[in-house]
Amino acid sequence: MSKFFSSKYSTLEAYVPGEQPKDMKYIKLNTNESPFPPSENALLAAKEEAGKLQLYSDPECTPLVKRMGDVFKIDKECVLMTNGSDEIINFAFMAFCDESHPIVFPDITYGFYPVFAELNHIPYTVIPLKDDFSIDYNDYVGIGKNIIIANPNAPTGMALPLWQIEKIVASNPDNVVIIDEAYVDFGAESAVQLTKKYDNLLVTGTFSKSRSLAGARLGFGIGNKELIADLNTVKYSTNPYNVNRMTMAVGCAVLDDNDYYMNNCKTVMENREYTKNALEKMGFFVLPSFANFVFARHSEISGAELYLELKKRGILIRHFTKEKIKDFNRITIGTKDMMDKLIDTISDILKEKQNENL
Amino acid sequence: MSKFFSSKYSTLEAYVPGEQPKDMKYIKLNTNESPFPPSENALLAAKEEAGKLQLYSDPECTPLVKRMGDVFKIDKECVLMTNGSDEIINFAFMAFCDESHPIVFPDITYGFYPVFAELNHIPYTVIPLKDDFSIDYNDYVGIGKNIIIANPNAPTGMALPLWQIEKIVASNPDNVVIIDEAYVDFGAESAVQLTKKYDNLLVTGTFSKSRSLAGARLGFGIGNKELIADLNTVKYSTNPYNVNRMTMAVGCAVLDDNDYYMNNCKTVMENREYTKNALEKMGFFVLPSFANFVFARHSEISGAELYLELKKRGILIRHFTKEKIKDFNRITIGTKDMMDKLIDTISDILKEKQNENL
Repeated sequence: MSKFFSSKYSTLEAYVPGEQPKDMKYIKLNTNESPFPPSENALLAAKEEAGKLQLYSDPECTPLVKRMGDVFKIDKECVLMTNGSDEIINFAFMAFCDESHPIVFPDITYGFYPVFAELNHIPYTVIPLKDDFSIDYNDYVGIGKNIIIANPNAPTGMALPLWQIEKIVASNPDNVVIIDEAYVDFGAESAVQLTKKYDNLLVTGTFSKSRSLAGARLGFGIGNKELIADLNTVKYSTNPYNVNRMTMAVGCAVLDDNDYYMNNCKTVMENREYTKNALEKMGFFVLPSFANFVFARHSEISGAELYLELKKRGILIRHFTKEKIKDFNRITIGTKDMMDKLIDTISDILKEKQNENL
Repeated sequence: MSKFFSSKYSTLEAYVPGEQPKDMKYIKLNTNESPFPPSENALLAAKEEAGKLQLYSDPECTPLVKRMGDVFKIDKECVLMTNGSDEIINFAFMAFCDESHPIVFPDITYGFYPVFAELNHIPYTVIPLKDDFSIDYNDYVGIGKNIIIANPNAPTGMALPLWQIEKIVASNPDNVVIIDEAYVDFGAESAVQLTKKYDNLLVTGTFSKSRSLAGARLGFGIGNKELIADLNTVKYSTNPYNVNRMTMAVGCAVLDDNDYYMNNCKTVMENREYTKNALEKMGFFVLPSFANFVFARHSEISGAELYLELKKRGILIRHFTKEKIKDFNRITIGTKDMMDKLIDTISDILKEKQNENL
């Protein structure tokens, strides 16, 4: 830290992204990326747009917002595109939370929420998950504070049904409820249409998971047009040209090919159930997942050990050190080949461990 | 504004980007873009990288930072890449300024500085330019506050020599001096090498102007490694994957072809002197420019009128309404053909005006 660093950030603990080791080629099951590349149209769009890079991008993202309107069945005044969904979530923390408007979220959820709260000096409280790792929606009904809930939640993968989300939104009319739907396309119910009914609901999403664009950085927020106007004030005071031309063009191509991506989601969901069954047969406890990952633990091997043993063998999964979930690992769902390789390798590790213990 | 918008931003006046009207095709001389497209290698890099977009980008921007080290002759710990240079400037305001660490800048400069100050609740003072629209470096020597100076300045285009920048940096050892070098490649002296001597100097830059990548959003900060570490703490608490894969790949290709871009800068500088001479012959007062634009006024036509007359005729230039500079217009330097078209059109407008007055 330099002597110039503002004391307001001196205790800030930054978010730590999933590791990207470069020492060898790994099977990457640690950052919830899609195993499927973007469609050919997206590649062509990127190259074509690169020829116009000397010109600024459209700060209003006009062609992309039009397609968002068509695909999500919303008005174009009700959507804002951002440089990944981290940006829209940060904008929402900035716009709607402050010292007198605190925020609540589950104790086990996306690790960036407490970082955004600390960054913006927003008081926050965490509400423990139930013993089965699910969110009890009753904990949030009429709580009278701003709320952010990832639905499905990460890293558990568990989801709330839409009627429970609606209860939370309807019972907190004087507070903003942010539903982070990064993983919604893998089997959960989206709250996007509820934004037409409730002026206090902001739904955020990303093209990183279901639409194979983690590396393009494209996120969005959908809400009542007044909420979106406030978020635009923050955007135009922070980074008006936040979405670059290539990402905008690729995003348009991806929405034009929406069926391809939604079919990929179905394949991931099939592979998820296949993986869950195989893990359970090997003695794992696996939470019911509505995301493109599973969260699993085994009574005979610690989360940390399994993570390390798999890494040695060229497979990356994500381990968290937080006490409540340290026995678990989060495993991204890839292609069937990737999952077979994972299952076989875990089987080998467990056998070796059993032999050691004989 | 929604009822949920935080009162801390309720008086915020967002930055207004240069207009991008879509009603017809204009000659764009209003946002200081390069008239030259990126090189063929950049296009190929964009397309190749698009095939890997399902994977997150490298938050450390490893290949790009390596090339930055080579081109700018600095250590890789001394550079941070961002989503345009607006992002690095905002990060610097966040990291080094707060209620007890105010910032100063000229009264006429990049319009985003006061917005960043307001956004982050940082007290700021503006120091008037001299009557000739230049910055008096003595105003900043030993001022004991954080400082941001665009060098060359915008929208004037005028530059400070390096020895004056050094005096400012050396005389304020307990404060951070940010030199915004967005336009430095068009004839001014860069302070990058001074970052090795002074731990309180941050130089920011962009690929938007001299390197034809306005639409790719690529900016950077160069400074002492402790300063860069602080800025990284802010980045990893805001948007770790801030630079997308395609922009990173295109940025690498652009640095590999650095000579092409630096030659384009020479052409722009030649066209600038050509344009300045032609404008002066028509009776304009033109400030001496070290940027890819000129700032000019004419005693017989107001800045606003000239802007509107040119727009009617399909040419966009930038007019600012601030009292001190409202007689001027900022005109981006394009190709010689573009400038000839501008000169001929202005000549017609002036003749029509003279005829009206007869």
